[in-house]
Amino acid sequence: MTASPIPERFKRHALQPEEAQRRLLARVGRLPAETVALSQAWRRRLAEPIAAPHPFPPFRRSGMDGYALRAEDVRAASAGSPVTLEVLETLPGGTAPTRPLGPGQASRIMTGGMLPEGADAVVMLEMTDAMERGGKPFVKINKSVPPGENMAGIGSEIREGELLLEAGRLVGPGEAAVLAACGYAQVSVFRKPKVAVLSTGSELLEPSEPLAPGKIRNSNAPMLEALIREAGAEPVLLGKVPDDADEAEALILRGLEAADLMVTTGGVSVGDYDILVDILARWDGETLFNKIAMRPGSPTTAAVRGGRLLLALSGNPGACFVGFHLFALPALRAMQGVRDPLPFRFPARLAVPFPKVNAFRRYVRARSEIRPDGTVWVAPTGEDQSSLMTTIVDADCLIEIPPLKEGYSAGQPVMAVRLGERS
Amino acid sequence: MTASPIPERFKRHALQPEEAQRRLLARVGRLPAETVALSQAWRRRLAEPIAAPHPFPPFRRSGMDGYALRAEDVRAASAGSPVTLEVLETLPGGTAPTRPLGPGQASRIMTGGMLPEGADAVVMLEMTDAMERGGKPFVKINKSVPPGENMAGIGSEIREGELLLEAGRLVGPGEAAVLAACGYAQVSVFRKPKVAVLSTGSELLEPSEPLAPGKIRNSNAPMLEALIREAGAEPVLLGKVPDDADEAEALILRGLEAADLMVTTGGVSVGDYDILVDILARWDGETLFNKIAMRPGSPTTAAVRGGRLLLALSGNPGACFVGFHLFALPALRAMQGVRDPLPFRFPARLAVPFPKVNAFRRYVRARSEIRPDGTVWVAPTGEDQSSLMTTIVDADCLIEIPPLKEGYSAGQPVMAVRLGERS
Repeated sequence: MTASPIPERFKRHALQPEEAQRRLLARVGRLPAETVALSQAWRRRLAEPIAAPHPFPPFRRSGMDGYALRAEDVRAASAGSPVTLEVLETLPGGTAPTRPLGPGQASRIMTGGMLPEGADAVVMLEMTDAMERGGKPFVKINKSVPPGENMAGIGSEIREGELLLEAGRLVGPGEAAVLAACGYAQVSVFRKPKVAVLSTGSELLEPSEPLAPGKIRNSNAPMLEALIREAGAEPVLLGKVPDDADEAEALILRGLEAADLMVTTGGVSVGDYDILVDILARWDGETLFNKIAMRPGSPTTAAVRGGRLLLALSGNPGACFVGFHLFALPALRAMQGVRDPLPFRFPARLAVPFPKVNAFRRYVRARSEIRPDGTVWVAPTGEDQSSLMTTIVDADCLIEIPPLKEGYSAGQPVMAVRLGERS
Repeated sequence: MTASPIPERFKRHALQPEEAQRRLLARVGRLPAETVALSQAWRRRLAEPIAAPHPFPPFRRSGMDGYALRAEDVRAASAGSPVTLEVLETLPGGTAPTRPLGPGQASRIMTGGMLPEGADAVVMLEMTDAMERGGKPFVKINKSVPPGENMAGIGSEIREGELLLEAGRLVGPGEAAVLAACGYAQVSVFRKPKVAVLSTGSELLEPSEPLAPGKIRNSNAPMLEALIREAGAEPVLLGKVPDDADEAEALILRGLEAADLMVTTGGVSVGDYDILVDILARWDGETLFNKIAMRPGSPTTAAVRGGRLLLALSGNPGACFVGFHLFALPALRAMQGVRDPLPFRFPARLAVPFPKVNAFRRYVRARSEIRPDGTVWVAPTGEDQSSLMTTIVDADCLIEIPPLKEGYSAGQPVMAVRLGERS
């Protein structure tokens, strides 16, 4: 092969977003597990499935405040003709019965209490009258009950060994309750992915710096830091570099060593100062893709070096935001054991016309709304062309607009990608 | 007044949930603000509104890679009759122009670069041909452009002083980007509410303890811990106490001193061992409500003592979960400056019949689904009567079922409460 006269940066082949996601995810492995205390497991993902270690409830539990008894003893009981039973003991929650019931016997029991041997039903307190006879406690039962009434049998809620939580599941309030109930004071979760962030661009200032002519403050790094935390990962902030390929390359190599995913912003277009393009053209890494048939973020680029991933996002805040959701987030989910890590998509209707003609698929930052008739509508949060951060602030989804020769009218059915993390 | 012969615990007046929420929120104040670094502001709520400190963009910014020029100079330009301009300098992003344009002059400019004085438009690179004449750089412009083309004027995205983020807003990725762009390296946020958690019940084991007859592991405390963290608050775990009113009262008083909200679970019914009822009957606090016309969680109780709030939730995990969302979460949102802190409700359709007759409003743990036609449907995650934690794990909403004389059929329009935090 002879060297091509066309510069490498112009020879890009555009992939469909799905193909780019597929290529990226093919290179992502699950991270190792680690054990943490239950209270530290919040917002982590389970490394192992959780099965019920014993049946729930683990004993025959009263569902009422009343008397545990033998249903056959009160078969004929009624308000007019009550049945009198001897009361053996009182069983509040947390107390093991000490005396099995024989014929004609009952025990006072509270909601959640453990039924004594011999009992097979509970009569609620309101259907009874306590009394004493010869200094001993008795109770009049004014109602018959079928066997099993007002009680939960062993395993009636959950059978022993039943799968309760799948591996990869996010630990939220319900999961914490299940883990505690199953005796997991320690939980095996996937290690948090480390994500290094480097911003490139000579125009960037730190948030603390005063404005200067031609400069803007770097808003992508703080945005990515929050997105990375939302994804259950740990940001490693490498700061910013001017448009200098050597300086950037040194930091990228450092980030690839320190992190499971290296994310850069800026420098991926085809301009004279797009240094990521230069770095990828000369280094010994493998480029997975460098052009995607979508807007914004068409020059979004991914590469692998030494088994570590580099995702080079556009410096435009809107494109950076979309690129993170479509590519970084699925990778971080996959590292944490999520079986279907791709973004969650939902059908909706377009609340306003979208008159723009598209040669490529567009991901439009949008807000969803449920109307009184229970239908979901989505409306762009601002002008799609704009790089406004304000269109990111209000967005809770991205409308997918396919390539269009004529625009869409309001009411058009569309698909949208939900933003934010999910279980 | 003479003492009533009816025990206090039976003299409860049931409030509608809205009235109970109103009484509780009337006693909630905003917490003081504190200043944190931007990277620590994630998931905190803003204590002050954020207005644009300067216009965006703060300078006239090129939207293209090309040449900044004076539109009037190229009014007659076309491919067949290009106009040649002298090139003064090159302006990558982040560079302040050093030379204003005079007639017949242009400057090479990159996307995001600052337009020089005199320039009023940008022609994209593809419509130009660079050349040299007498050792000096010139460019042929093959297209006319109107003034303002391919550039963003000062303040064209955001005007100086424009409100960007309201106080009480949750700091997520978009908010972090806006704060950074506005120069907020430090952010004023509301202090995190401290929420003390005490579980009552002689039946409770720690997650680390082996099962014993009549005992169950305490799943409410870990669940509440996660719910409190999700609400942006800080849990203060006081452990568990058996059904002993003196022991519980001492811990509750300690919790009220240490925290902005004290949450207990269990002991709120009318049984013999319902110690919270005893404590509230004898202490010097003020009871806001102790019965709500709803299921589950009708004995949910709230009180105030020394300006601090006590919320006594049911020990049943499902009722505890519902009570937290309806009462604790709005209080925690209000403490953090959220203007409308009540749960977000949305219209949907019932996916399955709900045949049960209700004397009171029911909050049924459920999962929502958007069908291909863009309509929202909700289905209970399990049997409503059950205390199964598994119905909590899968729930993303609570269906509100009003008092019904006949059940609902599938397809019935209903309202549902969305679970989880929102901006």
